Amino acid sequence: MTLKVDLNCDLGESFGSYVIGMDQEIIKLITSANIACGFHAGDPRVMLRTVNMARDYGVAVGAHPGILDLVGFGRRYLALTPEEAETDIIYQVGAMLGICRAAGVRLQHVKPHGALYNMVAKDYEVAVAVARGIAAVDKELIIFAQPGSAFARAGEELGLKVAYEVFADRVYNPDGTLVSRREAGAVIHDPEQASEQVLRMVLEGKVRTRNGEDIAVKADTICVHGDNPKALELVKTIRQRLLDAGVDIKPVGG
Amino acid sequence: MTLKVDLNCDLGESFGSYVIGMDQEIIKLITSANIACGFHAGDPRVMLRTVNMARDYGVAVGAHPGILDLVGFGRRYLALTPEEAETDIIYQVGAMLGICRAAGVRLQHVKPHGALYNMVAKDYEVAVAVARGIAAVDKELIIFAQPGSAFARAGEELGLKVAYEVFADRVYNPDGTLVSRREAGAVIHDPEQASEQVLRMVLEGKVRTRNGEDIAVKADTICVHGDNPKALELVKTIRQRLLDAGVDIKPVGG
Amino acid sequence: MTLKVDLNCDLGESFGSYVIGMDQEIIKLITSANIACGFHAGDPRVMLRTVNMARDYGVAVGAHPGILDLVGFGRRYLALTPEEAETDIIYQVGAMLGICRAAGVRLQHVKPHGALYNMVAKDYEVAVAVARGIAAVDKELIIFAQPGSAFARAGEELGLKVAYEVFADRVYNPDGTLVSRREAGAVIHDPEQASEQVLRMVLEGKVRTRNGEDIAVKADTICVHGDNPKALELVKTIRQRLLDAGVDIKPVGG
Amino acid sequence: MTLKVDLNCDLGESFGSYVIGMDQEIIKLITSANIACGFHAGDPRVMLRTVNMARDYGVAVGAHPGILDLVGFGRRYLALTPEEAETDIIYQVGAMLGICRAAGVRLQHVKPHGALYNMVAKDYEVAVAVARGIAAVDKELIIFAQPGSAFARAGEELGLKVAYEVFADRVYNPDGTLVSRREAGAVIHDPEQASEQVLRMVLEGKVRTRNGEDIAVKADTICVHGDNPKALELVKTIRQRLLDAGVDIKPVGG
Repeated sequence: MTLKVDLNCDLGESFGSYVIGMDQEIIKLITSANIACGFHAGDPRVMLRTVNMARDYGVAVGAHPGILDLVGFGRRYLALTPEEAETDIIYQVGAMLGICRAAGVRLQHVKPHGALYNMVAKDYEVAVAVARGIAAVDKELIIFAQPGSAFARAGEELGLKVAYEVFADRVYNPDGTLVSRREAGAVIHDPEQASEQVLRMVLEGKVRTRNGEDIAVKADTICVHGDNPKALELVKTIRQRLLDAGVDIKPVGG
Repeated sequence: MTLKVDLNCDLGESFGSYVIGMDQEIIKLITSANIACGFHAGDPRVMLRTVNMARDYGVAVGAHPGILDLVGFGRRYLALTPEEAETDIIYQVGAMLGICRAAGVRLQHVKPHGALYNMVAKDYEVAVAVARGIAAVDKELIIFAQPGSAFARAGEELGLKVAYEVFADRVYNPDGTLVSRREAGAVIHDPEQASEQVLRMVLEGKVRTRNGEDIAVKADTICVHGDNPKALELVKTIRQRLLDAGVDIKPVGG
Repeated sequence: MTLKVDLNCDLGESFGSYVIGMDQEIIKLITSANIACGFHAGDPRVMLRTVNMARDYGVAVGAHPGILDLVGFGRRYLALTPEEAETDIIYQVGAMLGICRAAGVRLQHVKPHGALYNMVAKDYEVAVAVARGIAAVDKELIIFAQPGSAFARAGEELGLKVAYEVFADRVYNPDGTLVSRREAGAVIHDPEQASEQVLRMVLEGKVRTRNGEDIAVKADTICVHGDNPKALELVKTIRQRLLDAGVDIKPVGG
Repeated sequence: MTLKVDLNCDLGESFGSYVIGMDQEIIKLITSANIACGFHAGDPRVMLRTVNMARDYGVAVGAHPGILDLVGFGRRYLALTPEEAETDIIYQVGAMLGICRAAGVRLQHVKPHGALYNMVAKDYEVAVAVARGIAAVDKELIIFAQPGSAFARAGEELGLKVAYEVFADRVYNPDGTLVSRREAGAVIHDPEQASEQVLRMVLEGKVRTRNGEDIAVKADTICVHGDNPKALELVKTIRQRLLDAGVDIKPVGG
């Protein structure tokens, strides 16, 4: 049986006259796109153009809902109640569903953005609220969640399909969480080292943690970035190493 | 054959801590609710609560998209391009669709709000853009449009179901448009006079214009208001007169 | 020497078509108005009208800056960096300064709103940032701060005038902080009991805490509310009791 | 007597994580900066950084207020009432005043942005409202206005200092207005031709219109752009030609 994996990246983060990211380049290298829904980035024009572009390149479309904080790009923690998290998600996923219908595309998945991603990873109550909001819109939507996170657990309990997400360029703690970006050495910049980490995760289901020991990890989809030329190079290398190893690169829902 | 008509009203215009309208009262008197989608009024919590309330009262749910202008309540003209109008509509109708799914309710119709309502009435290019946006999300959605308006024409041409909307408390010009609110005598305040106008529109398909002549008018749905006690009284009177005349009051899509 | 105290209240929290509060009533009872600056509530029209009204009633004007979160009314904690807090304050206080100039009024004070008020009470780094932002706009501005709070300390250290603020209707902990609203009995609803607490704070510089012991408290300004008829009654009673006791009620800056 | 002229450019149009413009380059070439105030572009951090940068380069600071339409970058016409225009201006100029105080800089001028610039050029009622709003904050502020525009007239009537603004790269109609960008040949791309137009305006007070005839024009400040490398080249050429001709390049308020 052929091993397969998905490469996902955040897209559609431009807003009005403001252009961000290298969407035209990264779209050729990935299989799932997490597209901003207008709360932390993106606007209806950017959303439609990005979904159309994903469709044209055969890339699966996901909603990338975030905190209503455009000036903070959804990266700042906001004390949302579970009701607020759930309804904000329903609204954003619904909006993306409308855009997908206009583009003639099926919505594949949902991946929370930024501070919301971190909140659902750790806060079980918010994680359940977000998972419920997603299920309320469409029970067939796949959620992207870190293995072992509160969000993965909430999704599993609600009977949602969960795609376990790993990071190519981040160092792992022994408990499966990521070393904080604020710490030195938290990010892997070397394409070969990142590819090595990805290959072990996909082929062996293991990752070497910061203290040198291996832990088991489930890798359905790999989070990559496309906002600068160096990030693009890293993705190209990872992609090539995966193909060389005979791994099928395709969307989780495909 | 029994005559029937729909009574529609704008609902869900509260926002965050700000409460507006008498939704709890008017919901008992109408058959279709136009619910704000977050651009000119409303937020995800208000939307879900309002859709749930409509469901509980057997009132059909419509999206009430508007111009992105919360401080202006969507009442100020904004020079939207057709692309902007179309995508803003797709986004808002999609968001409402998500909310409806969460409430287990079918979305029945779309009625543009405020300045956007006026724009689609007169500007054919914007009317087509808005109608296309609606059709792109769901071809079965009914649009609420004034008979003879650019929006009615655009909807008809695109094969959308059009519910022709009339006004209980507004005086008509001989060309079927409404006398501007800025002119004296544009609004009918007397419940009996408003009911009389409604009955003639529903039973005879005619309305007496400001210069005293009758014109033909198609009346599928009657726009009423619920933002103050006097408005509620007017709706109660209209409702009773319609029932007394043997008219069935039910949603256009029902 | 005559004792004096200031009564302050949040005003100008309406927004666009949304009306909130009983500003026309409470303005007659207070001496300092904390006026929202457009981030969590208020808009330029509401700001100018409220400042004009304060001027006409001889009420001193303060800026009431908050977190940029209109839908949450500035009540939700947002993880602001000190730089973000400082610049958001400079912007909002500057905007209020512009409005005050247009109204021909001197800006007397600044009191942070909601979650920001709580943040500067406890988080010294944010408190310093906010105090610096205020001082950067005008060193003569008085800050309203709870005695013993991080904000009071930051203001004192920067050489700002600090008006120590107490609460008429809140129960105090032995350490001088307020009992959380989430706990039963945290709020005093009885006008006589609230007046009693106010009188002791103003006349004796003491407050009885929840465990029955007295602590010292400095009371330059008393926070009252004007958003409902019961709150108005409470303010009227407090006002009368203070006047009966010979206390002068006037703005801190007067 | 030495001739002098000012070179002004829009700056500080970045927002949150979104970067736009080449502020670091253009700042070295101009003498007055029009800095966005947060309604159509800019945020408090961007404003402070840009004002600090202008101060460090000896460039005079102006407020560049716009329509509250971030997604449209303030370029879309919005039907503002005069009251809305006036109060939106007071708010934005006040906010910029706060930022300038924090940076230890005097606010020199105000130039409306985008659609608002076009509105005040033609609509006398809105022009008066905007001029009144500016005067209400500070009567010493200089307004930038096209010669012959409604805004210039409104400013003159209110006793404001008016700096007459001309365009280096735009073709003029015989009535002194600009040829619309929608028409072919409306924009001058050749640096030599643009410099030629600037020199004639500054040295002779004349500009050759699209039909070949000369009209008189008053040129206190020249509008240039800095959002792309070609625009920078054009400014460099204009600057050099002015210096070669012995013209002093300095702020209007200097």
